[in-house]
Amino acid sequence: MTPSLRVVLVAPRNPLNIGAAARALSNFGIGDLRLVNPYEVAYQEARSAVGESKTVLARSREFATLADAVADCSLVVGTTSLGPRGLEHPLKRLEAGARVIRKTLASAPVALLFGSEKYGLSNEDLSYCHWLMRIPTREEHGSMNLGQSVAVCLYELIRNPRAPSPAARKRADAASEERISALLLEVLAASGYVHERAAGSTSQKVRRLVRRMHLEAHDAEIWLGILRQIRWKIGYPDTG
Amino acid sequence: MTPSLRVVLVAPRNPLNIGAAARALSNFGIGDLRLVNPYEVAYQEARSAVGESKTVLARSREFATLADAVADCSLVVGTTSLGPRGLEHPLKRLEAGARVIRKTLASAPVALLFGSEKYGLSNEDLSYCHWLMRIPTREEHGSMNLGQSVAVCLYELIRNPRAPSPAARKRADAASEERISALLLEVLAASGYVHERAAGSTSQKVRRLVRRMHLEAHDAEIWLGILRQIRWKIGYPDTG
Repeated sequence: MTPSLRVVLVAPRNPLNIGAAARALSNFGIGDLRLVNPYEVAYQEARSAVGESKTVLARSREFATLADAVADCSLVVGTTSLGPRGLEHPLKRLEAGARVIRKTLASAPVALLFGSEKYGLSNEDLSYCHWLMRIPTREEHGSMNLGQSVAVCLYELIRNPRAPSPAARKRADAASEERISALLLEVLAASGYVHERAAGSTSQKVRRLVRRMHLEAHDAEIWLGILRQIRWKIGYPDTG
Repeated sequence: MTPSLRVVLVAPRNPLNIGAAARALSNFGIGDLRLVNPYEVAYQEARSAVGESKTVLARSREFATLADAVADCSLVVGTTSLGPRGLEHPLKRLEAGARVIRKTLASAPVALLFGSEKYGLSNEDLSYCHWLMRIPTREEHGSMNLGQSVAVCLYELIRNPRAPSPAARKRADAASEERISALLLEVLAASGYVHERAAGSTSQKVRRLVRRMHLEAHDAEIWLGILRQIRWKIGYPDTG
């Protein structure tokens, strides 16, 4: 979809997190994975794992320095759980930041940086960033798990701005709603729920009750079948 | 922020996933955690872990059945990585689904269900759901890690800081829907619409049919009254 996003993990320590990041790239079909100075054992362990993220990990590349990892990118964005620290970086909320990244990706590669599990991005790392992006977590517990924050950022990037409505189901038409209402009213009379005398005033209530079911065409057929069966079983009301 | 979201993990097996789900709840400050039939060792291990998610885990509750876990909820939403399977559930994309959930949360508790790591939600689980929600992952690798999918769903729920608009009417809770389903099933058996023998396989269909009515609390009372009357009128099925 957008091959020119580089998801850069800086000094990741945990193979499960590297694997989880790769899985998010695979799930959302966006980005390629770059690692800067990973804990080597963790990287090898993640690469040796099987599963659908294997392709992402096989294609992932390791870089000695962050400068190398982002060299071919026109925009470098750091992620943080805090406000700007030390360096005077503009800070964008994920939603606004993702909008800019999407726009840039149309013409040039973008790097999205995630710091190590324990320390996040260092001031040295941040100095390579054009601006920072923050997932809107609670202030009291801002720091997200690495794999989860990669997933949330990528989701926001692919979240469709054009909302294609899923194939709408066919609604029951007014005629079937009316048939159901009439049959239900008959059943209510036959079962003694309403007296025949009061049926006139009740019919409006029943009609509304049925409309509020917002029936799909298929379900309308089911309800008609159910009510016909009940009607038949009950028989006609006692004339006494 | 919104205390009435229940994040329900059904049969989770991995303590790291339970912990990651709890962390996402803590990060985004939304929801309380409920577990149905968790792998007990995993649940205990997750609970014993230290960290900022401790409060979420300490407050989490375990339920014997999914019915119990969602009994106080007016809207029950299942998550899936696939299209609707077997049962005819409406499927909403995360963004559209989250909009409905936010709206409902203004007036009533909502349950958001996540299936086990390996199998997802079963058809039996799905029969409790009003509709399903899907994170827009790639078709070729749709299945997300449990902790990551919880994080992405909660992010989408809090993404838009605008206050949710108050919903107009009180929705029926899952317990009344279940009462209606049970009574309707009884009526169907007594009227000869379904044979007692086939009732087992039909109960899921009936449960779904009732969920698709999207009942308001007031209408749920009316339907209970109607069905009780019909039940009484039909009497018990012929034993022949």
